[in-house]
Amino acid sequence: MSFARPLVLRDRTIGADRGPLVCTPLVGRDEAALRRELDVVLGKGPDLLEWRIDFFGAIEQTERVVVLARELRAAAGAVPIVFTRRSTREGGAPIALDEDGVFALYEAVCLAGSVDLLDVELSSEPRHWQHAREICRASGVRMIGSYHDFQATPPKAELVAKFAAMQAAGADVAKVAVMPQHLHDVLTLLDATLEASERCAVPLISMSMGGYGVLSRLCGWMCGSSVSFAVGDRPSAPGQVPVADVRTVNEIVQRALRAR
Amino acid sequence: MSFARPLVLRDRTIGADRGPLVCTPLVGRDEAALRRELDVVLGKGPDLLEWRIDFFGAIEQTERVVVLARELRAAAGAVPIVFTRRSTREGGAPIALDEDGVFALYEAVCLAGSVDLLDVELSSEPRHWQHAREICRASGVRMIGSYHDFQATPPKAELVAKFAAMQAAGADVAKVAVMPQHLHDVLTLLDATLEASERCAVPLISMSMGGYGVLSRLCGWMCGSSVSFAVGDRPSAPGQVPVADVRTVNEIVQRALRAR
Repeated sequence: MSFARPLVLRDRTIGADRGPLVCTPLVGRDEAALRRELDVVLGKGPDLLEWRIDFFGAIEQTERVVVLARELRAAAGAVPIVFTRRSTREGGAPIALDEDGVFALYEAVCLAGSVDLLDVELSSEPRHWQHAREICRASGVRMIGSYHDFQATPPKAELVAKFAAMQAAGADVAKVAVMPQHLHDVLTLLDATLEASERCAVPLISMSMGGYGVLSRLCGWMCGSSVSFAVGDRPSAPGQVPVADVRTVNEIVQRALRAR
Repeated sequence: MSFARPLVLRDRTIGADRGPLVCTPLVGRDEAALRRELDVVLGKGPDLLEWRIDFFGAIEQTERVVVLARELRAAAGAVPIVFTRRSTREGGAPIALDEDGVFALYEAVCLAGSVDLLDVELSSEPRHWQHAREICRASGVRMIGSYHDFQATPPKAELVAKFAAMQAAGADVAKVAVMPQHLHDVLTLLDATLEASERCAVPLISMSMGGYGVLSRLCGWMCGSSVSFAVGDRPSAPGQVPVADVRTVNEIVQRALRAR
């Protein structure tokens, strides 16, 4: 039984038909750290990797990033790579690039053919969003529109509207990550995801962060979230649980669903 | 961190401070079946046992039930026993007793001192409910008020009102079990439990049944449900998962909560 949509990539479709796709972040500061991290993370058998380029200390050296992307691509084998710069306004690390520089980097990396998905924040300037949309079309990279709130959880209607706005703006996947102040907020995120999954055609990714949010990281798939971000080596956001824990809970859920 | 209230019994308090209390049903048709079942079930280490007397073939033979209750009490050691007749209108098995007979049986079993909690449906006639309330006061047995809907999930406000009505009518614990037709219904049950836990002083027990309901059986504790019913040997309602699965998911949730 499938509760969440598969991700359609350039060369294949990866299904979330039997549980969430598990995505592990890579947050190394340099080549050596990333090589070591990738080695550890691949041992956990993730379905996706997210290279968080805002943690990379030499982000402004485009050629170095492109070369490393190629190396990571080769080392990751069949595991698709999401390329993500999280802005400081949405919880990312400070970087030595301005916004024009970030989108120029996106272009270089995508056109080099080393990544499969590109994360672009919905809060980006329209010209940057459009630029990313064109880069993705030209390179066959799928565009994840994303929205983060590391402080709070907006009301359900607002969250559903975010998913819809990302789809309307041309995102291939729509992602919402918010911080709960209370357990009600976790249920709001799950409810919004479920409603958005009925209204939108694109695959969704959602999570409630922090301790309370564990419920969404473990069970959000049932409400329509195609991907759960989980720790392979080091977390990239609060509340991420180990890859093995996501898999274990999913096996239990699958058994229960088969038995019904 | 505690999300659900402990159960205060006659002689002690059993905490739901580190996850749900796990209650396994006993559904044997006769003494031999119940002895075998209890043996299997105790091996799973439940926190509570629920003897579903509507499955017992000789329910109309009071003395036989009282003797067996004493035997089960002795065999169960420190594990508290819930005594439950689920009516056919709320999903139970047909029995050879009328309602007056059921409450007379409750009186005999409670006064014999062999059970710790008594399940009484909120839909019982007021005189029967009051009778049960008096039996419980006289015997030190705690009264679980219960409400079941095996077809559907009423709206959130109605569920919250059920919990509140049971507390107002003198129940020591309030239980709601409903059937989801859709995942939205599972979230409704969780949301209603969370809201009721803020409004009511008594411990709550809630579950969404069937396959979708697995989310509530595994994670309902975070929303304020003190008990999860899980399979020790045979299930008593659709969607119950094995005891070990509830424990495993809880360990994962606890780790995530500690890490936050």
